[in-house]
Amino acid sequence: MPPKPETAAHVLLPWADLDARHGPWPSGVRVQVWDGLTPEDRLPPDVLESTDLWVMPYAVPGVERLLPRLPSLRAVQSLSAGVEKLLPWIPEGVSLHNGRGLHDASTAEHALGLILAAQRELPRWAADQRAGRWEPHFTRSLADCRVAVVGYGSIGQALERRLLACEAEVLRVARRARPEEDVHPVDELPRLLPRVDVVVLVLPETPATQGLFGKEELAALPDGALVVNVGRGRTLETEALLAEVRTGRLRAALDVTDPEPLPGGHPLRQQPGVLVTPHVAGGSAAFRPRAERLIVEQVRRYAAGTPLVNAVPLS
Amino acid sequence: MPPKPETAAHVLLPWADLDARHGPWPSGVRVQVWDGLTPEDRLPPDVLESTDLWVMPYAVPGVERLLPRLPSLRAVQSLSAGVEKLLPWIPEGVSLHNGRGLHDASTAEHALGLILAAQRELPRWAADQRAGRWEPHFTRSLADCRVAVVGYGSIGQALERRLLACEAEVLRVARRARPEEDVHPVDELPRLLPRVDVVVLVLPETPATQGLFGKEELAALPDGALVVNVGRGRTLETEALLAEVRTGRLRAALDVTDPEPLPGGHPLRQQPGVLVTPHVAGGSAAFRPRAERLIVEQVRRYAAGTPLVNAVPLS
Ligand SMILES: NC(=O)c1ccc[n+]([C@@H]2O[C@H](COP(=O)([O-])OP(=O)(O)OC[C@H]3O[C@@H](n4cnc5c(N)ncnc54)[C@H](OP(=O)(O)O)[C@@H]3O)[C@@H](O)[C@H]2O)c1
Ligand SMILES: NC(=O)c1ccc[n+]([C@@H]2O[C@H](COP(=O)([O-])OP(=O)(O)OC[C@H]3O[C@@H](n4cnc5c(N)ncnc54)[C@H](OP(=O)(O)O)[C@@H]3O)[C@@H](O)[C@H]2O)c1
Repeated sequence: MPPKPETAAHVLLPWADLDARHGPWPSGVRVQVWDGLTPEDRLPPDVLESTDLWVMPYAVPGVERLLPRLPSLRAVQSLSAGVEKLLPWIPEGVSLHNGRGLHDASTAEHALGLILAAQRELPRWAADQRAGRWEPHFTRSLADCRVAVVGYGSIGQALERRLLACEAEVLRVARRARPEEDVHPVDELPRLLPRVDVVVLVLPETPATQGLFGKEELAALPDGALVVNVGRGRTLETEALLAEVRTGRLRAALDVTDPEPLPGGHPLRQQPGVLVTPHVAGGSAAFRPRAERLIVEQVRRYAAGTPLVNAVPLS
Repeated sequence: MPPKPETAAHVLLPWADLDARHGPWPSGVRVQVWDGLTPEDRLPPDVLESTDLWVMPYAVPGVERLLPRLPSLRAVQSLSAGVEKLLPWIPEGVSLHNGRGLHDASTAEHALGLILAAQRELPRWAADQRAGRWEPHFTRSLADCRVAVVGYGSIGQALERRLLACEAEVLRVARRARPEEDVHPVDELPRLLPRVDVVVLVLPETPATQGLFGKEELAALPDGALVVNVGRGRTLETEALLAEVRTGRLRAALDVTDPEPLPGGHPLRQQPGVLVTPHVAGGSAAFRPRAERLIVEQVRRYAAGTPLVNAVPLS
C-alpha cells in the first residue's frame, strides 16, 4: 500500500462548488472554504493556522483583515485586477497575485457598450421609447472613429480587439513607447489627442496616474469627442470634465468616478451627454468561469511547486 | 486637338459635394444633382430627359415618383439594403441596384450596441444615474453567450465578426443549409433555439419571412433569452413577443417594429426588459463614406460599360 500522501497545500477558497466542478484536486491538496461573509471566528482554528494559499473572496469589502491571522500564509490570490489597496496588508515573505486577465472580457465589453451607447444615442432612444416618441435621426458611429486606448494593458488589448472588429482605428498608449508594437508613450498625449474621436482610460490607480487626465488633456480633444473611463475614477479630473461637459463641448461615459460612489446629488448625474454606470464593468457573468480557470491553475501550480502566475511586484 | 468626348453617361446623384471630393469623373460622364427635397419640377427638363443612371436620394420618402418621368433611364441605384417597396416602380428594362453592404457596419454595430445594452443593463444604470442611485450588481455578459444570427447575409456576417471579438459563439442561420460554411437552414430553428442565449433577426421582408419568428419560435427559447430585431419589423410577431416579455420570461431589443412607427401608446414601449430604437440601425455616420465609395464605383463601371454591382434580381 502506498504511503498516505502528506498534505502539501492548505488552500482556502471563496466558493464551495469548485470541488464538485473542478476536482479532484492534486493529491496532497486540502481545500477549505470561506466566502468572506460568515464571521471569520467561525472558521476552524486549524484553517487559520494552516492555510498557505488563500484565494480572497471577490468584491467583499474588508476581507483583508484575515491576512494578519494566517501565520502559515505563503501566497494570496486576489480576483481583482487592481490590488493597490491590498499592498499595505501583505505580510513580509508572502507573494501577492492579482486577477489580471479575469476581467478583460467583462470590462472590455462594458467599455464597448458604453462607447456604442454614447455614439448611437441609446439613452435618448430609451427615453423616447417610454415617452411615446418616434423621431429617428442620423447618429455618430463607432466605425471609422479613431479611439485612443490610454492604458494598453490586459483590458486595453481586449478592448482593442473589439474596437477593430467594429472598424474603428486604435491608438495605443502606455507608460513607455514600445515602437515594435506601435505603442505610444503617455507623454505624447498632447500631440495625439487633437486627432481622436474617443479616448478610453483603462489605467490602474497609482501615484503617477492620479489626475493624469485633466484640464489640459481634455482641452486638447476636438469638439464632440467622447471621454470614457473604465479604469479608476481618480485618473480623470472630475471638475475639469464637468466644465467641458457642461458647455456640451465633450461627452463622457464613466464606469468609475471620483468620488465613488458618486453622491446622489452630484452634478455629473444630470448632465446631458454623460452616461454613468456604478463600477460594474468587471462584474458580469463573464468573470466567474475565467476566475475558476485561474484558481484551478494556481492550485495545480502551488501543489506542483511551480511559480504561480500573475505575481504583483512588491517592493 | 482631340475631339470633344461624347457624353456617355448622364448621372443624377443625391449629393452635390461628391464632385469636389471624388471627381474628376471619367470622361464623358455628366453629373447632375437632385436631393429629393427640392420639387422635381425645378429640375431642368433635359435632366429628366437624359438621366440614364439615377442614384436615389437616401431615406427621402416618395422619391420613387420620379421613376416614370425618366425616359432614358437604364439603371437605378438605391442606397437601401431592403428595396422591396421599389420593385413595383421599376420600369421594364431598367436594372435595380441595392445598397447591400453600405449599412453593414452601421447596422451590425447598432445590433451589437442593443445586445450589450440589454446584457449589461445600460438602461437601468442610466435611470439610476438620474435618480441618484448607486447600486451595483452583477449582470449578464455577452462573452460566452451563444448567439443565433437568423439571416446570415451581409449584415449578419458583419455582426458575427463583432460578436466573435466579444468572445460569443455564433450560430449561423439562413434559408438553406451551407454545410461548408456551417450555415444552418431556417427549418432547423426548433432544434437550435433551446440552446441559444440571444437570437438576432437580420431578415429582409419577403412573403416567406413575414411572421417567420412567432409564438412557436419564441416558446422554444430558454428562459431569460434576448430577442433582437434589426431586419424588418414584420418578421417578428409582435403579439407573441408581447406575451413573452409581459411575463418577464424573455427580453427584447428592437430597432424595427410592427407596426412602424410604433404608436405612442403601444404596450411594447412600457415593458421592462424591452428596449426600442426608432429604426436607426442603418442611419449613422458610418453610412456616408461607404455610400460614396459605392457611388463612385458604380459611376466608373457605368462609364466603362462594365456591369454594375449589387444588381437585384427582377422577375
Ligand atoms: N471598472 C471596472 O470594473 C474594472 C475592472 C477591472 C479592472 N479595472 C481597472 O483597470 C485597470 C487596468 O487593468 P489591466 O488588467 O488592463 O491592467 P494592466 O494589464 O496592468 O495594464 C495597465 C496599463 O496601464 C498603463 N499604465 C500604468 N501606469 C501608467 C501611467 N502612469 N501612464 C500611462 N499608462 C500607464 C500600463 O502601461 P505599460 O504597458 O507601459 O505598463 C498598462 O498598459 C486596473 O488596474 C483596475 O484598476 C476596472
Ligand atoms: N434596421 C435598419 O436600419 C436596417 C438597415 C439595413 C438593412 N436592414 C434590413 O436588413 C435586411 C438584411 O440585410 P442584408 O444586407 O444582410 O441582406 P442579405 O445580405 O440579402 O442577407 C439576408 C439574409 O436573410 C436570409 N433570408 C432571406 N429569406 C429568408 C428566409 N425565408 N428564411 C431564412 N433566412 C432568410 C438570407 O438567406 P440566404 O443566405 O440563404 O440567402 C440571407 O442570409 C435588409 O433586407 C433590410 O430589410 C435594416
